[in-house]
Amino acid sequence: MAPQLDGYFKQVDSMSGHFIERLRKAVAIPSVSADEARRPDVVRMGEFLAQELKALGAHVEARLLGKQPGLEHLELPPVIVARYGNDKNKRTILVYGHYDVQPAGKEDGWATEPFELTIDDKGRMFGRGSTDDKGPVLGWLNAIEAHQKAGIDFPVNLLMCFEGMEENGSEGLDDFINAEAKKFFADTDAVCISDNYWLGTEKPCLTYGLRGVSYYSVEVSGPGADLHSGVFGGTAQEPMTDLVRILGGLVDTHGKIQIAGLDALVAPLTADEKDLYTNIAFTMDNLHESLGSQTTIFPDKERTLMARWRYPSLSVHGIEGAFSQPGAKTVIPAKVIGKFSIRTVPDMQPEDVDRLVFKHVNDHFKTLGSKNTMKVSLLHAGKWWVASPNHWNFSAASKATERVWGVKPDLTREGGSIPVTLTFEQATGKNVLLLPMGSSTDGAHSINEKLDKKNYIEGIKLLGAYLHYVAEEPLN
Amino acid sequence: MAPQLDGYFKQVDSMSGHFIERLRKAVAIPSVSADEARRPDVVRMGEFLAQELKALGAHVEARLLGKQPGLEHLELPPVIVARYGNDKNKRTILVYGHYDVQPAGKEDGWATEPFELTIDDKGRMFGRGSTDDKGPVLGWLNAIEAHQKAGIDFPVNLLMCFEGMEENGSEGLDDFINAEAKKFFADTDAVCISDNYWLGTEKPCLTYGLRGVSYYSVEVSGPGADLHSGVFGGTAQEPMTDLVRILGGLVDTHGKIQIAGLDALVAPLTADEKDLYTNIAFTMDNLHESLGSQTTIFPDKERTLMARWRYPSLSVHGIEGAFSQPGAKTVIPAKVIGKFSIRTVPDMQPEDVDRLVFKHVNDHFKTLGSKNTMKVSLLHAGKWWVASPNHWNFSAASKATERVWGVKPDLTREGGSIPVTLTFEQATGKNVLLLPMGSSTDGAHSINEKLDKKNYIEGIKLLGAYLHYVAEEPLN
Ligand SMILES: [Zn+2]
Ligand SMILES: [Zn+2]
Ligand SMILES: [Zn+2]
Ligand SMILES: [Zn+2]
Repeated sequence: MAPQLDGYFKQVDSMSGHFIERLRKAVAIPSVSADEARRPDVVRMGEFLAQELKALGAHVEARLLGKQPGLEHLELPPVIVARYGNDKNKRTILVYGHYDVQPAGKEDGWATEPFELTIDDKGRMFGRGSTDDKGPVLGWLNAIEAHQKAGIDFPVNLLMCFEGMEENGSEGLDDFINAEAKKFFADTDAVCISDNYWLGTEKPCLTYGLRGVSYYSVEVSGPGADLHSGVFGGTAQEPMTDLVRILGGLVDTHGKIQIAGLDALVAPLTADEKDLYTNIAFTMDNLHESLGSQTTIFPDKERTLMARWRYPSLSVHGIEGAFSQPGAKTVIPAKVIGKFSIRTVPDMQPEDVDRLVFKHVNDHFKTLGSKNTMKVSLLHAGKWWVASPNHWNFSAASKATERVWGVKPDLTREGGSIPVTLTFEQATGKNVLLLPMGSSTDGAHSINEKLDKKNYIEGIKLLGAYLHYVAEEPLN
Repeated sequence: MAPQLDGYFKQVDSMSGHFIERLRKAVAIPSVSADEARRPDVVRMGEFLAQELKALGAHVEARLLGKQPGLEHLELPPVIVARYGNDKNKRTILVYGHYDVQPAGKEDGWATEPFELTIDDKGRMFGRGSTDDKGPVLGWLNAIEAHQKAGIDFPVNLLMCFEGMEENGSEGLDDFINAEAKKFFADTDAVCISDNYWLGTEKPCLTYGLRGVSYYSVEVSGPGADLHSGVFGGTAQEPMTDLVRILGGLVDTHGKIQIAGLDALVAPLTADEKDLYTNIAFTMDNLHESLGSQTTIFPDKERTLMARWRYPSLSVHGIEGAFSQPGAKTVIPAKVIGKFSIRTVPDMQPEDVDRLVFKHVNDHFKTLGSKNTMKVSLLHAGKWWVASPNHWNFSAASKATERVWGVKPDLTREGGSIPVTLTFEQATGKNVLLLPMGSSTDGAHSINEKLDKKNYIEGIKLLGAYLHYVAEEPLN
């Protein structure tokens, strides 16, 4: 039976001004985790959250993670964990978000003050953190408060985990989650993360997959120091010559990865899966707009979505140690380090990818006949993640979306990675759902970041409705 | 008849302490032309030279070149021009040098204070500018003074041109030389530049050739802004993918340039010329030592010297706009600019080189089938220079070298360019000789720059002796 949600929705609407004020207060705290000088603001933002949660009657703990590795004079901001409700007869949902934000300054080109929530006549609420991720985090608090004010029983036990270092490497978070999996998070029945975006601007979605990433460096060195190309050009083997040849042999213009054996690691495309892409609300115009150009690899939506979600890709990011400034310098760099990464997908095992990459690069280097020294290394790897969208966690979210937005959500995957997703899945052993609040044009890490008022208010309804549907879903 | 030089040589030896003091004073003035804050020191160094020359009875003018292009608040340091002697019956020799120096700081790793001349027990005189180019510049002044003190008639009229911007692009100098060619420099019979080095440490040389350089950029752009490789990897054509392929197609590990038609522009090697390389005092050990590694292209001296002096070479210097920092960043750069240059040799015409380079790069880019935009451009070009070593200017220098050092000098060329050489040749229409004072281990642009006391004192004898032999050479 569909839950009675009208009272809750009405309450959210009537409190919308209050909820926007709460977001305004949060945006006003410049909790930039990558800026050392802003660390006290990050901590202040954590305290703000903790106090709001306490005022709502939640049990709250601020957990310290120790010193920041490499910057030992800096204390890491606390993880704010909280529990709202402790009823053995209810399901327990663990939600995650982050209260830190990307750097922002008027001088970067913002049209408004980045740390002052500014609402325009189209209902766009501009401000750093509005959509990433303060809006969604406050969404959970607002849902609790609306239930209280409307006198509606909260349908689940809610566990919350809000971190303050997401935009700066989530230092220490994995260890914390693993340590708490059988403690603070022990009752978790499913996990919900609201920290991504709709694929477009009109249609809501649920996200069930992310690509992984394996990031490599190729270091080529020869001479003892940088050389002058006039004196040594033509007489010394140049590391850059070798490196650009190796980097040029990794992938072609059409995205075809040249590493033998890599394709065979990819899960084959079934006819069923292929059909999914046709119905996704996405157009090549969307892509051209976000790309700012027409330089796409594929002319059609289906292959584009598959290329982003379910096939690997290889990008060459740059070269360390070579001349990278404007102007002209006649240097022969003595040691250069190329950087490239591969976005990985099911069923690629990171170790297999490493093995094939190392073999390809080593074999290519051998064909060059170079006396220089070459070393290919893995810098870091994060695995892909795919959840089952048939789980009750997804069914509940799908029904809630249809109820709030009047449309069945698209089931999407993403090309990037949100490493904490896999951490939660592995630590709790439970289904994880990505339930976005904002839309594709919010500009999470750009200037003029915004969250549409409609996405915020309907998003608060969605989070609450999701919890009600969760409570009604049969066991899988 | 060989000139009588014993009196002059004896005088130089007896004044060696005084000449070293003069160098000490010059090194103490930190005339770093690339450092805005040091500009007053550069000017002070020019004034020091002017005063010393006036005290020796020379006619001296400090010529202003105007504001520094791009830094209009900065006055360019003056060119110090001087004339010593005005006897219609004597030959007139124009000499060039520079009184500015490379930057230097103790923090770069100098063993001594860079702007304090420090002499060790092996007679090595450490200090910024000692060998590049204050020692040689003062050599001319010392030669004049020793003649005066010994009461020996100065054998030629000496025109001097000392600039203060050589280490920072020689701004305005070409225009100045061209403007003065028929004025201050009108009487010039030959030109002598002492601003390069012996090929090794034991044997003196005269230098009669330099390679040119043509410096190119290849810009590839596509998306409107930098992209995240998770979101766009596999769906957008990446400028870096195209660029590393183009850069990888320019030259191979063994220095073989892949640009069709370029080899045909190079003057063929004659049997006579080939024989020259066998007798040059140079070993592969010299090269390995200066390279700091064994990563040479050729195993033998002859091919190595030819590759440095008389064949073109291509070096890839770096990429602007890509990720160039340490660490891992998953960016797809929107616009990347590769930089490479070709060292040019007789008889390559720069326009022909441009044409072949543009064609090669454009053709290569077409084969990629890319929708990105590619633009290949010439950033700057300087032509190669080769003088006739049979000219009386070289004969005189050769005889002087044999007299001072007891050995016939090697006739060498250089792989790099000294653009002012060609400017003087073209502006005056006269033979230009490069007559080095220092040796290959002086470290002109490195830390611990030095000039051996022996090279300085014997170098002063050499410059004076050269002028005496010049006076006796028959007309060509
Ligand atoms: Zn986020
Ligand atoms: Zn973010
Ligand atoms: Zn110099
Ligand atoms: Zn220099």
